[in-house]
Order: sequence, then C-alpha cells, then structure tokens
Amino acid sequence: MARLRMGLVGGGPGSFIGPVHRLAAEMDREIELVAGAFSSDAARSRLAGSAYGIDPDRAYPDLATMLAREAERDDGIDFVAVTTPNFHHLPAVRAALAAGVAVICDKPATATLEEAREMARLVAESGVPFALTYTYSGYPLVREARSRIAAGELGAIRKVLVEYPQGWLAGEAAGKQAEWRLDPARAGLGGCIADIGVHAFQLAEFVTGLTVSELLADLGAVVPGRVLDDDCQILLRFANGARGCLLASQISVGERNGLRLRVYGEKAGLDWKQECPNELRLMHLDGRTELIQAGDAALGPAALAASRTPGGHPEGYLEAFANLYRDFARMLRGEEGALVPGMADGLRGMQLIDTAVRASRENLGWVAFP
Amino acid sequence: MARLRMGLVGGGPGSFIGPVHRLAAEMDREIELVAGAFSSDAARSRLAGSAYGIDPDRAYPDLATMLAREAERDDGIDFVAVTTPNFHHLPAVRAALAAGVAVICDKPATATLEEAREMARLVAESGVPFALTYTYSGYPLVREARSRIAAGELGAIRKVLVEYPQGWLAGEAAGKQAEWRLDPARAGLGGCIADIGVHAFQLAEFVTGLTVSELLADLGAVVPGRVLDDDCQILLRFANGARGCLLASQISVGERNGLRLRVYGEKAGLDWKQECPNELRLMHLDGRTELIQAGDAALGPAALAASRTPGGHPEGYLEAFANLYRDFARMLRGEEGALVPGMADGLRGMQLIDTAVRASRENLGWVAFP
Amino acid sequence: MARLRMGLVGGGPGSFIGPVHRLAAEMDREIELVAGAFSSDAARSRLAGSAYGIDPDRAYPDLATMLAREAERDDGIDFVAVTTPNFHHLPAVRAALAAGVAVICDKPATATLEEAREMARLVAESGVPFALTYTYSGYPLVREARSRIAAGELGAIRKVLVEYPQGWLAGEAAGKQAEWRLDPARAGLGGCIADIGVHAFQLAEFVTGLTVSELLADLGAVVPGRVLDDDCQILLRFANGARGCLLASQISVGERNGLRLRVYGEKAGLDWKQECPNELRLMHLDGRTELIQAGDAALGPAALAASRTPGGHPEGYLEAFANLYRDFARMLRGEEGALVPGMADGLRGMQLIDTAVRASRENLGWVAFP
Amino acid sequence: MARLRMGLVGGGPGSFIGPVHRLAAEMDREIELVAGAFSSDAARSRLAGSAYGIDPDRAYPDLATMLAREAERDDGIDFVAVTTPNFHHLPAVRAALAAGVAVICDKPATATLEEAREMARLVAESGVPFALTYTYSGYPLVREARSRIAAGELGAIRKVLVEYPQGWLAGEAAGKQAEWRLDPARAGLGGCIADIGVHAFQLAEFVTGLTVSELLADLGAVVPGRVLDDDCQILLRFANGARGCLLASQISVGERNGLRLRVYGEKAGLDWKQECPNELRLMHLDGRTELIQAGDAALGPAALAASRTPGGHPEGYLEAFANLYRDFARMLRGEEGALVPGMADGLRGMQLIDTAVRASRENLGWVAFP
Repeated sequence: MARLRMGLVGGGPGSFIGPVHRLAAEMDREIELVAGAFSSDAARSRLAGSAYGIDPDRAYPDLATMLAREAERDDGIDFVAVTTPNFHHLPAVRAALAAGVAVICDKPATATLEEAREMARLVAESGVPFALTYTYSGYPLVREARSRIAAGELGAIRKVLVEYPQGWLAGEAAGKQAEWRLDPARAGLGGCIADIGVHAFQLAEFVTGLTVSELLADLGAVVPGRVLDDDCQILLRFANGARGCLLASQISVGERNGLRLRVYGEKAGLDWKQECPNELRLMHLDGRTELIQAGDAALGPAALAASRTPGGHPEGYLEAFANLYRDFARMLRGEEGALVPGMADGLRGMQLIDTAVRASRENLGWVAFP
Repeated sequence: MARLRMGLVGGGPGSFIGPVHRLAAEMDREIELVAGAFSSDAARSRLAGSAYGIDPDRAYPDLATMLAREAERDDGIDFVAVTTPNFHHLPAVRAALAAGVAVICDKPATATLEEAREMARLVAESGVPFALTYTYSGYPLVREARSRIAAGELGAIRKVLVEYPQGWLAGEAAGKQAEWRLDPARAGLGGCIADIGVHAFQLAEFVTGLTVSELLADLGAVVPGRVLDDDCQILLRFANGARGCLLASQISVGERNGLRLRVYGEKAGLDWKQECPNELRLMHLDGRTELIQAGDAALGPAALAASRTPGGHPEGYLEAFANLYRDFARMLRGEEGALVPGMADGLRGMQLIDTAVRASRENLGWVAFP
Repeated sequence: MARLRMGLVGGGPGSFIGPVHRLAAEMDREIELVAGAFSSDAARSRLAGSAYGIDPDRAYPDLATMLAREAERDDGIDFVAVTTPNFHHLPAVRAALAAGVAVICDKPATATLEEAREMARLVAESGVPFALTYTYSGYPLVREARSRIAAGELGAIRKVLVEYPQGWLAGEAAGKQAEWRLDPARAGLGGCIADIGVHAFQLAEFVTGLTVSELLADLGAVVPGRVLDDDCQILLRFANGARGCLLASQISVGERNGLRLRVYGEKAGLDWKQECPNELRLMHLDGRTELIQAGDAALGPAALAASRTPGGHPEGYLEAFANLYRDFARMLRGEEGALVPGMADGLRGMQLIDTAVRASRENLGWVAFP
Repeated sequence: MARLRMGLVGGGPGSFIGPVHRLAAEMDREIELVAGAFSSDAARSRLAGSAYGIDPDRAYPDLATMLAREAERDDGIDFVAVTTPNFHHLPAVRAALAAGVAVICDKPATATLEEAREMARLVAESGVPFALTYTYSGYPLVREARSRIAAGELGAIRKVLVEYPQGWLAGEAAGKQAEWRLDPARAGLGGCIADIGVHAFQLAEFVTGLTVSELLADLGAVVPGRVLDDDCQILLRFANGARGCLLASQISVGERNGLRLRVYGEKAGLDWKQECPNELRLMHLDGRTELIQAGDAALGPAALAASRTPGGHPEGYLEAFANLYRDFARMLRGEEGALVPGMADGLRGMQLIDTAVRASRENLGWVAFP
C-alpha cells in the first residue's frame, strides 16, 4: 500500500498547527508530506520546506504553483492540507478543487458564512474528497461515547453541556497565534466562537447524533480594546427537545484547553474531558458509576480502531489528530467506515458563528438554527 | 459560656434536613437542642422528640405552643430553627419574631417573593436576629476564596461560572423529599431553581462580592408530567460588568451534589468543588497553578476559623453547616465577625426564583435584576 | 434513650485530639461530655473544663479524683476517654477498670508491649467494656470495602498495599503535638510506627480480614538528631499467603494525611484514600472499573449505617471518628453489631511496634508475627 | 537534514512494541524505517514489511542478511532497532556492532547478567553508538523533575518511592505478549522485575540522579504454576543515604500501567504518574503545592525540548518514546545534549534483575548493589 502524498498549505515558520498536521498525517505511515506552499513569502516557504525535510524543489512560493507543478509529476500530491488563517481557506480550497486535488482543511471552514456556502457548493459540484479537521472527534473515547449513545445506552438525550475554557488570551495577547485570531480581516466574524466554539459545537453534535435547532447567544469582548468576542455563552435547544449549553472562553485565566462534554439521557449520563482524554465516566440511573478507559479490550470497534496502544499507555491530542488523517486516507482510498468531518460540519460551524455573532450583537434572544 | 437553647420547627420522622440542623447546631457545643415542634401531628412530634433525646415535655404539637410554653421557662429556647417546607416558612418566622425569638431558617426564605418581602419587613421591624442556612458559604475554602477575591488577588472579576448538577430527580422521584419539592403548593413557584439554584446564586455572590444586575433565564420541566422546573440555565451579568452563567439541574443522571464555582479575574482564576471541598485551585496569569488545601496553616483567618482539624483530615458538609450555626451563635451573643447569610440573601434568592421563573415562562430575554 | 456520660482524660489546652474526641463522641447525641481530668495541672484542667462548657465542679485535677467523685453522683460518668500521650494510657486504663468504668482509649494502646500485655490482662479480667480509636475503620467506605471482601467479591486476597505518608515532621518539628511524639519517654519505642504505622496496619487487617504472620521491617530516623523512627517500610506476609507492604512516613514533605489502602484479589482489586474518603474504586478482572460513592443507597448495611447524609454531601474524618463512638455507645448498651476496635487490635498494634523496631534495629530480616 | 535510516529487528505480525518503535522513531521526521528483519520466518518478515509499507526487497529473513545487504547500498540503514524478546538481544547487538551499525535496543538489555556484561564489553570496544529504550525517561515532566532535583529545588533527597502496578497477568495470561514473558528460556531470570521493575528502577535513578547502593528484595510468583516472579517488593538504600521502596506487580487486578514516582527531599517533594503524565505535583516544605503542567512556557529547557504542543494538548506514551528516538538521532549526528539511556543503564537493570532474583530466592536480606 503506497503512502498518499500530501502538500501542505501554510505551516511556515512560527506556525503551531502546520507541524501538527504534518505529524498527525504521517503518524500511521499512510501519508507522506512531499510538498508545500508553506508561506506567501517564497524564501520563507523554502526555509520551511527545509525544516520539514522535503525535496527543496517542492517547497513552492504559492499554492497555484504547487498545484501546477505537482500535476506534472508522476508522484505528484494526492491532496492538500489547508492550514492557513481562516480568510485564506476559500481561495485555497477553490484552487485545489479546480485542480481536482482532494482537500483536508483546518476549521472553521472559512471566514464568513457566505464563503462557506460557496465552499459547500464547490465541494458538491467538484465531487472531490473534502474533510475538515475537527480534531476532538478523533479521540477514541469520544468515539466510544458516540457509539454508546447511538446504541441507546443513555436512552433519549435530555441535556448536553459542552464547555471549552482557555485562558491564553486573558492577558496582553502576543505572538503570531494571537495576532491573526484577533483580527476580523483574517479571522472573520468570530473570535472565540470561531476558534474554539465551533469545536465544542461540533463535538456536541458528533457525539450525541443530535442537531441543534435553536440557540440563544451571549458573546462578549472582555479584554479592553478587543473587537472580536473572547467569551461565549450559548443556550441550545436540540431538535429532539433536549436542552443544552455551550460555554467557550479565551479569558478564563489559567485554563489551558479545557474542552469537556457532558451528556445526560433518560437512562445514563456521561462525562469526558479533553485534558484527561483516556477516561470516560458513565453514570447510570441506578447509581452505578463506571470509569471506561482508553485502550481497553472491552471498548467498541470505533474506539479500538482509533487506539494504538493498550490501556494505561496514554494517547493524546496528536493521536486524535492522526485518527482524522487516517480516516481521511481511508476516504481517499474509497474504503468504508471513515469517520471524518466534512463540509456539512463545516457549514454548520460557520452558521453557528454567523448566527451567534449576529444574535448576540442584536440581542435577538432565541433564534432558529440554522 | 452557656449553650444557646434551640427549638426545632420541622425535622420530624423521615426528614433529611432536620437531623442535619440538629447535628450542625450542636457540633461545637455552643448550642443545644432542647425543644421542638417537629411535626404538625402531635404524636409524630412526640416520637421525633424521643428520637432526638429531648425532654418529652418539650416536644410540642405546634410552634405556637412551643413559643408560649418555652417563654414561661427560665431555660426556654433562645432561638428557633425553621426546617419545614418552604410554604411554611413565613408563618413560622412571623410567629417567632412576634414572640421576640431569634430565627435561623432554611433556604429558600419563603415560597413566593411576596412572602419574602413580608418576611423582610417583619425581620427589619422586629430587630430580632435572623439567619438563613445557605450551607455552602460555611465551607472553609469558600471563605478562603472570598477573602482572596476581596483582597484583590484575582484582580477585577470578569467571569463567574457556577453549576449545580444533581440527578436524583431524573427518574421517577419517590419519597418524602421529592414529594413536596415537586408540588407548587408546598415548594412555591420554583422547583430546581428554588431547591438548589438559589444555593448556586448565593455562593456566586458571596464569594465574589459582586451583585447580579441582569439575567436571562431558561428553565425547563424535563421529566414528563412535572409542573415545576427541574433544569435551569441562567446567563448572568454582574454590576461590575462581569459575565456569568448559572447551571442547576435535578435531571443530570448520576450527579450527586455537584456544586462548583469558577471565578476568573484579570490576574487569576479559582475553582472549587463541593464534592471535593478541601481543595481550592488557584490559577495565575503567569501560568502557575496552586492547590490550596483546607486546614493548612497558611490559610487566611476566615478559613482557619472555620476549620476544626489540620490539613489532610477531611471536613465536609456537616462541618460547613456547623460553621453557619457557630456564626449564628456569635451573632446572638453580639460578637463581631459572624459571617452568616440573612434576610438580604433570602430576599435576593426569592427575587431570583421569581424573576427566573417569570422571565423564562414569558421568554423575556435579558431582564434587570432584581 | 438517655445519653451516655463521658469523662475525658487529657484534652487540655493545646490538645488536638481531645476536642476531636469530644466532638466525635457527641455528634450523634448518644453521648455527652460531663466531666474531665483534662490536664495534670489543676488550673489548666479547670480552664479546659470551662472551654468545653462543662460544670466547673466536674473539671478535676486528676483521674483518680474524677473517678472517685463521679462514682458518688447519680449522674456520674459512664465511661472515660483516654487521650493523653501513650505512656499515660496504662495507668489511666488501670484506674478506670479498677473503678469498673468503661474505657475508650486513643491508639496506640500503650507505650510498650509489656504495658499492652498488662492492659490486655486487666481488660480481660475486669470484664469492663474497652475500645480503641482506630479512627479510619470508622469510614463508611472502609466498612463497605470490608463487607465486599468478606462477601468474596475480590476472591482470595493476594496483595495488600497500605501507605500512610505525612510530611509534618520533615522540617524542624515544633509545638506540643511534635514534642511528646518525638520523646521516647512519653511516646514509647516507636515514632512514626507508633503514631501512624499502627493505623495503617490495623486498617489493612480490618478491611481484609486477614492476619499478618510475618514481617520484615526497615525503620529509619531520617531527620538528624531524631531518636525515634520517622520513616517506616515494612514488608508483610499474611497467614493466607498474601503478600503486602506497609509504608508510613512523617518526612514525606508536602503530604498531609495520605493514608491509602489497596487490596488485590483473584477476582478484583480495590483502592481507597483517606483524603478522598467518599470514593472507593473497585476494579474487576474483566477490566471494568466502578466508582463506589459514599452515601449511595446501593451500599451495604455497614456502610449505610455509618453514613449521615446522602451521596454528594461529603462526610469526613470527624464523622468517621463519630462512628467509632456510636459503635462504642452500642457496645455499652449491649446492642448487637458494634464494629469497634478493642484490645485485640491494641495488642497487635503494640506487637507491631515492638517487633518492627526490634527487627529493624537488629536487622533480623523476616520474622514471625507476632 | 537527511533522515536517518532505520532497520527494525523484530516487530513482526502480532508484535506490540515493534510498531511502537516504528511510530516513535518516525514521529519527528528525523528517522525513517527502510528495512527490517521482522521475523525469523522469512514469509512473515515479508508480510510485516508490506504492512509497514517498506520496499519489499528490504524485508529480510534475518538480521545477518539485512546487515550484509544494507551495507552494500548507498542508502543503507544507519542503525538497527532491536525489539525481539530478551534472549535474542545479545546476538542481535553483537552482529550489528560487528558490522559497525549503531543500535537502539529495547529493555532489559539482555536475558542474563552475563550476557549484559558481554554486551557492555562489546559496546565499549566497538565505539558504536548504543541506546536503550527506557521509555519513561522520555516524558517531558520526568525531565522537568530531573532538572529541578539537579538544580537543588528539593534539597538533599531523603526518600524515593517508585511503584509500577499492572494487572494484566492476574488471570490466565494469554497471547503472544504474555507467552514469552512467562518463559524463562526467552525472558531470562526475571518476570515482573525484568519487564517493568527495571523501568521503575531506571526512572528512580534517572530522575533523582542518585544511585542505589543496597537493596532487599522480596519477589513472588503469585499465580499458581508461574515460574518467574509476577510481584516484586524491593527496599532500597541510595548512596547518599536516602531510603526508598520499589513496588512492581503484574497481578494487581485492574491496574493498567500505573508507574508512579514520588521523591521527597529536605525542601520539597514531587509526585508524577505515568497514566496522567502531563501534571507534576511539587510540594514545598512551607505547605505550598504547585501543579506543574506539560507544555507550559515556564518549564525548563529539557522539558520544553521534549514537548510538541502547548499546555492542555495532552501528549503521551508515544511522544515520550519518540523523545528517546529524537535524542538517539541527535547522538548519531554527534549533537550535544542528547538525553538517552545507554549501556550503563542497561547493565544496572540487569544487575537489578540478577541481584533481586538471587537475593529474594536465597533470602539474603540487605545486599550491596551492584
């Protein structure tokens, strides 16, 4: 089985997520980074190519060049991974799809809902494989939770709490990571809601299998001088009548990456925390509490397929990310069972940002979603 | 120093909270239960008196009798503790105050806001000492948190999350405890909001020293057939501009008594959980995380005064409750420094119930509070 | 049911454990402190009596006087609680037994094994009720663990780990608590082993129902200048062949009161921590892990009888201590089912100290026990 | 920078650790698997080569062939990774060293101490780079702990506790992993002590910088019919006088991979758990407890160099393993600062197994080490 060849868009010097994509993509030896348009500055792109250790000829000054040159090679890229700031996603995806090259793109899909709609149209029309890296759906116990809910272990879902506290923007934000995320021109309409709120939202829908049908948003720009939201509180109503709440924040001092999901049904509840990802708490109506642990042989097939080591050998964020790439590789090979978020999730994420920002700004109260 | 003499109102056979009041009141040997009107049924009251081990002559058939007879004794009661269902609080308090007898009353203050206003008027006019048992403000580390915030360790507060998940009413509720709480005639307007939502609210204001000035309420009656709310989501805005969220639920399967408070300021954040009450997490803007532990000699005076044992000897719910009684005893003796919730907290609690129930039912969006 | 009347021996100004005994004894209103010989200094004893709030006439200058005077009263004491330093236990117990007064005594039983043998003889000959406050056996989940092991849920026990790290004597020890414990004349042969090692040992035997039949001791006096041991490592062999290890330390910087017991059998293992006492982890051979929680209705009768509040309302050290007193009261009343450690545990504890100190000092390797 | 080329020895169908080596080696794109002698069965070796995705011509039937053929290539392997059962380590290492090919070998070094001595001689004489995969020394916070101790933050070390409970051999062991580990002919003298005891030992010495100078071993074969030890208790004395205890077990039902290290010094103590590897508890003599978290910018250079993601993005076992390979690559390139265990650790590990097995079997009590 030959490795799929990947071209990275973005991920130049100083990037956090570019190297993560590279590492995750290659972890299971099904994919290999062979080319990149790492930066809009040609010299920096070459520099990055050298750091990644690829053939210097394949570190391109821009995506268009990469697509053209790679198309001429027998061993040209099989797909691109788009890891640039949000406003750059649509042009990159458009170009790749036009060239018939598959795409895996970082979330959120785009900078605006209009762009997302166009992207959805392009993806649909092109028929080219497309995926979005909603990382947290790659965790084995997230998939275990999803399987158990789908199997009815919780009964009808009544209540969903998803929270995502971070504190890294509580002070004077500095550095490349903060800069573009705080700038509406590059990040888009949403700040916190676009950076992490969409993760929380996708996780809630992914695990429960439910869809949000109404929401009430309260977004704030807490740190003085900030234009985009840095703290979000959103009340949810799901189509089945379940109630919910989504909390996301970048100003929760001292919190690192505290994504947590709690789901309560008629028969049982469950609790999962991203910073302690190898444990899933399952609480039954009769009072029994079980601790389900990653890597255990008793897990369902979806969780086991997403595990590389037995229980007690902690896997983490990079392995979860790698699970998405492994699923994406399966999709490209036309195999069954790939569990990878795509344009539907991307569109819902952008609808969330758009709806929440607008509803909060105009104080609309409950609004239908999407 | 003679012990203060306590007369219990309620707490008859099957009561959960009556014996808790007795135990907490007597823990530090500053108070002694000597009399009671334990039940509206005279025989059951006598039975309870016998179980509590008091003089049989002082197990009265009703409060009026207790107040009259005790007034005739040299060693008559110094105060009454009201532990009956909510709808009975106002008449009991009215009678005690009229007799010039101090009162400590369970929360919420009354069944309706109108009753609370009358109670507040009666308390003010009588000049008789009055306290409300918002238990959780008695925990040592809750007081430590309050002291640190007051001292400015967190800087200006920006965000307050308080949650109170329970699961005991997720199924078919049964038993005396559930029965009256689900009955509007006895519990009042609110279900979950009145039973535990007010605790969460009081804790948030008590610890932060802030006051809620606006709220948006989303209350639900999730279990079919239920009239009162059993799940609450309330967005908060504090007078200083801080944002917040209060979540309380009785249908969160598998949760026991999960009260938790998180407060984030400009300089630091803190996290406290009632089920693990002897640890307070303090997170600084520079990334340091401290675990503050109950009983430690480095704690502030408020926390140390509320501790009976050194670090590592866990104290819990009953000790927290006892701290309220100890403070109440201090108040009765005219000593300084008693930290005991009173009618102001009681009134705000009833305003919360009234406002939240109304605002949710009529879908009012953000409303001024109170 | 009249309250039993208690006379306290020790517990004068500065005492930690005296007030704990008082509080624990009275918590359930089955016992009342009415008299005391709180200090060998008459003035200090009176001072203590006043602080406890007892009748000034009943704060005696010494135990002999207390026994004599109380014997003359109709409402004289039913028992004494001995809370003085170890070397004083035997004379106190001897006097009380001679007067036909029941005794509850702090652990370890005495300062030396010879004294313990004499005490055992006196207890046996007198026929007077006698108990020892091995506090940790009073925790509800400790009793649950014991019940489950007795019922065979773990299968044959293979391995027992009990550890008790503290750090309070890691630095320059100061204060009354440290002083007598570090002095062989008052503490006896053992330091750490006598203060906390015996707790760990008793807990292991109490919960497993096994008896240690061999041990290998490695005791050290780590802090320079110290005569008695402050760190203990003891390998154990139980009569059924199970292996084990007991670790106790007073120089484990930063540890508070970290008693923990782990037991592994053929079919399941369990894990309990004193600082987090309301949770018991039960791990099955098939990989399932259950979290058993204090106060839950599904607990066995022994645990439920030792609980005062439902799940989620943490009880702690004082409640565990009170459970011993409640059982002691039952014993005094001749009721069935009291689960209170007595002279047998006391003797084994002293044998442990004696054997471990000797075997370690003389480097004897494995020795038969007792 | 060209990637180093790796040849895998072992890691055929059914292997746990082979794929882990491959993944860890390649994670940071500094190394690439290009060849392998995956199985002593040529067909199975080809099968494995195909599964790993290497050139079919480079899946060799045995190590000798691999060494010979690779030596003929311009792009031949730079090193071999030996991942076969213990008894096969020495011949493999001998062959590689003889060919001048660098080696990274799984622990323990060999099956017997005699073999280890020969291996040490061969390594020394050859001058060829050699490393051993004591995985747990690759964790960022393990390195942080080591740095802090080296910097004197704990003061002189007084006490070291290292434990490594597992439960996977508590029942009827089955499968390839259990089979060879329980067979003296393939595993060597030690069972539990060789499989995980050496990990615990190496971790303790690695982090503290101390060396064990005496030990007392108590090893048992608990499950009926077992020849090799499956439960170990070892008392330690370090050259600086510090006391310690090492506990390792494979019959602790329900435990997964519970390696934990606690170190107590004059000034502070620390606590690290492998199953929760991204948190390090640091406890100061003055009572302060800090939680140090992986990925935090305030960590020392050794920990930061071993981290790939910021705080809150959990890394785990595979990343720790990859850190060893990254260090090994540095060593091969002649760079400074590689922190990789080598023959010295390997020899000490084998001395531990040999000494502990012998001392326990013959009940020697305290023996000098090595």
